[in-house]
Amino acid sequence: TTPYSLLILPGDGIGPEVMAEVVKVIDWFQANRGMRFDIGHDLVGGAAYDKHGTPLADETMARAQQADAVLLGAVGGPKYDDLDFSVKPERGLLRLRKEMDLFANLRPAQCFEALADFSSLKREVVAGLDILILRELTSGVYFGEPRGIHDDNNNPENEGGRVGINTQRYTSGEIRRVARSAFELAKRRGNKVCSMEKANVMESGILWREEVQWVHDNEYPEVELSHMYADNGAMQLVRNPQQFDVIVTDNLFGDILSDAAAMLTGSLGMLPSASLGAKMANGRPKALYEPVHGSAPDIAGQGKANPIACILSFAMALRYSFDQGDAAVELERAVERVLADGVRTPDLMGPDGGTPVSTVEMGDRIVAAL
Amino acid sequence: TTPYSLLILPGDGIGPEVMAEVVKVIDWFQANRGMRFDIGHDLVGGAAYDKHGTPLADETMARAQQADAVLLGAVGGPKYDDLDFSVKPERGLLRLRKEMDLFANLRPAQCFEALADFSSLKREVVAGLDILILRELTSGVYFGEPRGIHDDNNNPENEGGRVGINTQRYTSGEIRRVARSAFELAKRRGNKVCSMEKANVMESGILWREEVQWVHDNEYPEVELSHMYADNGAMQLVRNPQQFDVIVTDNLFGDILSDAAAMLTGSLGMLPSASLGAKMANGRPKALYEPVHGSAPDIAGQGKANPIACILSFAMALRYSFDQGDAAVELERAVERVLADGVRTPDLMGPDGGTPVSTVEMGDRIVAAL
Ligand SMILES: CC(C)[C@H](C(=O)O)[C@@H](O)C(=O)O
Ligand SMILES: CC(C)[C@H](C(=O)O)[C@@H](O)C(=O)O
Repeated sequence: TTPYSLLILPGDGIGPEVMAEVVKVIDWFQANRGMRFDIGHDLVGGAAYDKHGTPLADETMARAQQADAVLLGAVGGPKYDDLDFSVKPERGLLRLRKEMDLFANLRPAQCFEALADFSSLKREVVAGLDILILRELTSGVYFGEPRGIHDDNNNPENEGGRVGINTQRYTSGEIRRVARSAFELAKRRGNKVCSMEKANVMESGILWREEVQWVHDNEYPEVELSHMYADNGAMQLVRNPQQFDVIVTDNLFGDILSDAAAMLTGSLGMLPSASLGAKMANGRPKALYEPVHGSAPDIAGQGKANPIACILSFAMALRYSFDQGDAAVELERAVERVLADGVRTPDLMGPDGGTPVSTVEMGDRIVAAL
Repeated sequence: TTPYSLLILPGDGIGPEVMAEVVKVIDWFQANRGMRFDIGHDLVGGAAYDKHGTPLADETMARAQQADAVLLGAVGGPKYDDLDFSVKPERGLLRLRKEMDLFANLRPAQCFEALADFSSLKREVVAGLDILILRELTSGVYFGEPRGIHDDNNNPENEGGRVGINTQRYTSGEIRRVARSAFELAKRRGNKVCSMEKANVMESGILWREEVQWVHDNEYPEVELSHMYADNGAMQLVRNPQQFDVIVTDNLFGDILSDAAAMLTGSLGMLPSASLGAKMANGRPKALYEPVHGSAPDIAGQGKANPIACILSFAMALRYSFDQGDAAVELERAVERVLADGVRTPDLMGPDGGTPVSTVEMGDRIVAAL
């Protein structure tokens, strides 16, 4: 069999550390489950800027387009704060999302039983939580034109004389394709989709609501669909997140709501994500997997980072890119067992004590549990 | 002395019920504290649409411009769901905000001691919470042009053939004026401002950050200022809301983040808001006061609504429009006493039992406590 091609982009901050643990896990699957991976490594974010003067070199972009899946660590750090907008570490990530056309960003918010007490929410509100936020990732205000900061000197009422502009723009086609992903995902879960926008104040939100409804009525009438204003969505996520199954929303609302949802679980260091695009010739979707957490520059290089989010992102790759659902479950179970045994990186040390371990030890424990 | 002029717009759903209780409170202050109010009543939202075919008649708009303060109940309801965007109940509220130029929307998120257990968050995370979200209310994507839904039939890649557009647009002057309000408010509180945007992906966010920083450096260097990406802001509000004092943010982020913050307190029925504009000739700011909660059509007319948010909105009017800070405190204390006595509308009935009361009884109790 041809090996799976995997492009690894560790990025900045704790990215390289957590990625090193993922590589161990990949090696285990190669050694024990007859899988073969053809692994390439490259730079993204600040690390790419330091070497190439750009947060994503064209060559790296081309390699990502060729790969069966891209695994990304994290990008950004204070070192790059004063860089021009166009070469900030984030632009590397945004270029990958846009040029690979990764429109469907899956962000599961799951509360791990062993960690339910870490949440700032009451145990009964979050224990067993398992919702999936599907965020549109290639359009909206992140990419809409016109955009920029301009002089507005002829306007005497505008103290400061500048104006900043961004454009929220969605086509019906962009909305329909992510809606389809939402309904497909819901069918394999709780069969419920809640779509969020601000149709009461934004026309783009009206279009969003109408197109999601259209896909539902014409193609997925058997899935339960509801609509909610995004501000109410933020409230309901705090009040009673278990009312949701799949939430589908746009790029900007998805950014904010998925972060709120992630924090409900109390363990950001645990949460993976998948960004999927259209199917390639080999039948696999274009795909990028990354932890939800950031580059955490404050703890980088100290062995304190939790590699689980990145390892679970690889589990998502097994499931969504390589059709290895059993292997994905095997890996997820191994993580659960290690947690149940009380093994804890610093971010997971809490009221229940536990065995403190480093990034490397956590990786080793998970491999051992496999 | 000339009376204070007050325009009351009860609006839809539970609006009229809760407003009736506010009127009792106003009467008490007239009878016992030597204040005189010249009160007008008018329609807004669905109620105005039913009568005039528009959610805010021009005449009502003119009366609002003349009033020292406007008190609004709530707008909207399922009856109006299928109305055209341009005449939906919300447009009445948005027109008031825009034409009165009410740029500073104060949304305190306070957790009442007697109600701390109502939050879905752990008591220790929210007890004593007292933060203030200052939302810009007259600009941004709510009002930016171009906007609308258009045909996009010449684009064969766009299944559905439509496109929805909204524009996020901020001038430096708009940002500076709300920043000044934030620093002024912070000086009378914890002296700390956190500004939130998405400067990592939006140029309008970069402008926002730069202008807030400019106002700080040039006019309020003594106030502590920090910046946070709005997605992280959503996380931090869930994780540890007490780290904040004043949060200043744009219209759309403010809509979502203030709702999340409101829900942290566990008692939406308690939260007031003030929307302030420039000073009028009499030295008072243009002002509109309204509860954070919506029109709650499901319980309208049943005596179940909690009038406290609307009553506390009047307390904000006493403070910010009429310079009656002592009277505001007197009213707030009365509300606290009634709550401490266990008096509870249905939304406040929880684990601790309490004395169930109707909307009207809650109003009576508060007047009695005064
Ligand atoms: C790093 C940043 C550009 C990014 C975003 O805003 O999408 C991040 O917050 C995320 O959610 O993946
Ligand atoms: C009713 C609606 C137009 C409004 C808004 O989006 O601003 C509401 O959600 C609010 O926060 O006051």
